[in-house]
Amino acid sequence: MHRVRVRVVEDALDANNTIAQANRADFDREHVTVVNLMSAPGAGKTTLLEKVLGGDGLPGVRAGVLEGDVQGSLDADRLAHLHIPVTQLNTDAGFGGECHLDANMVRSALPALPLADLDLLIVENVGNLVCPAEFRIGEDARIMVSSVAEGEDKPLKYPLMFRACELVIVNKLDLLPHVDFDLDRFNHHLDAVHPGVARMFVSARTGEGVEEVRDWLAALPARTGAPA
Amino acid sequence: MHRVRVRVVEDALDANNTIAQANRADFDREHVTVVNLMSAPGAGKTTLLEKVLGGDGLPGVRAGVLEGDVQGSLDADRLAHLHIPVTQLNTDAGFGGECHLDANMVRSALPALPLADLDLLIVENVGNLVCPAEFRIGEDARIMVSSVAEGEDKPLKYPLMFRACELVIVNKLDLLPHVDFDLDRFNHHLDAVHPGVARMFVSARTGEGVEEVRDWLAALPARTGAPA
Repeated sequence: MHRVRVRVVEDALDANNTIAQANRADFDREHVTVVNLMSAPGAGKTTLLEKVLGGDGLPGVRAGVLEGDVQGSLDADRLAHLHIPVTQLNTDAGFGGECHLDANMVRSALPALPLADLDLLIVENVGNLVCPAEFRIGEDARIMVSSVAEGEDKPLKYPLMFRACELVIVNKLDLLPHVDFDLDRFNHHLDAVHPGVARMFVSARTGEGVEEVRDWLAALPARTGAPA
Repeated sequence: MHRVRVRVVEDALDANNTIAQANRADFDREHVTVVNLMSAPGAGKTTLLEKVLGGDGLPGVRAGVLEGDVQGSLDADRLAHLHIPVTQLNTDAGFGGECHLDANMVRSALPALPLADLDLLIVENVGNLVCPAEFRIGEDARIMVSSVAEGEDKPLKYPLMFRACELVIVNKLDLLPHVDFDLDRFNHHLDAVHPGVARMFVSARTGEGVEEVRDWLAALPARTGAPA
């Protein structure tokens, strides 16, 4: 007799992970590297994308963006001038507006994504430092953006988010002279919750440090072992 | 035969509202006016409380603070020097750390609150522009803080939050010369989602406009009809 033992799904996150793996398989089949971009509201994710993907864009990388928002398409509209594929995903059909993207929401957007024409898909999550960190969506890497205007204590207050990502981008460096934010103390707090995590200090507004982000993203497919 | 018809509870928010009303009854019994203070992470809620409740505090009003955070007690520690009752409530016992306070969490803190010694309780919610707006906690009024560093588009992107509150405080006004934030456009967006809502423009860092917030809070018990 053929016997197979299947373990019962344990919780909601297991269901999410199952769907995330299905997304992952679809992305792999199309050779697409996926980045989950997270931050608090107003940390500058969209401005950063404008700068990183604008101009000549990422050399040799066909990039696209999936914009997650509670409602509206303001960010997608801002990226329209880049002439890259931008898809809007709204969460307001859920309970009062979901505060994060999960694997199933991203899966619902897959038919609208031109995966065959992309090397890199950047998913801009809903602005929130808590729940987005809890839901994998099938991504290769997670980046979080933290603005110096938010204060140097954020790694200690939202440790799961800072722990969940492969790269921390500290944005709005141009505001440093005008806010109470000590870079050394921030680094100390960040290392306390995620020792040695990669970090970059940028100003999406002035363009300072954006080149380094561009290089990191351009090299990501090779690093994550996505089939070329 | 005595017959009573009880309507079946419809959803999770009904349960929350039931508990919020129980909280409300307890606050009323102790003649405490309650404010739910909400914002994105790093908008400056705690600095604002330091300024509003520091110095001579609110004239004739015995104030206390309930600090909601995913984990840690950084904000409560910052308020310790004010010599007012500060109670810490952490949400990290929940699923990965709850991203908001709900009525039941606040209820669990009631035994730790010196309600008989308070006229005004300010509940500093978890930094988040989505879910906190969905859960009443038994408050008299809801205030949200929006920093100019977050951008003028926030009312359009998080309309439920801006619609849910009685007062919008625009903070970090000292950064206005250094960020792309047009006050007129912000007002226009705010009126689009919550026409005519009360608003104040302050800098908790420099103290500009804080007096107006103090006056609003000091007058709140009379306005909300809380028994004196």
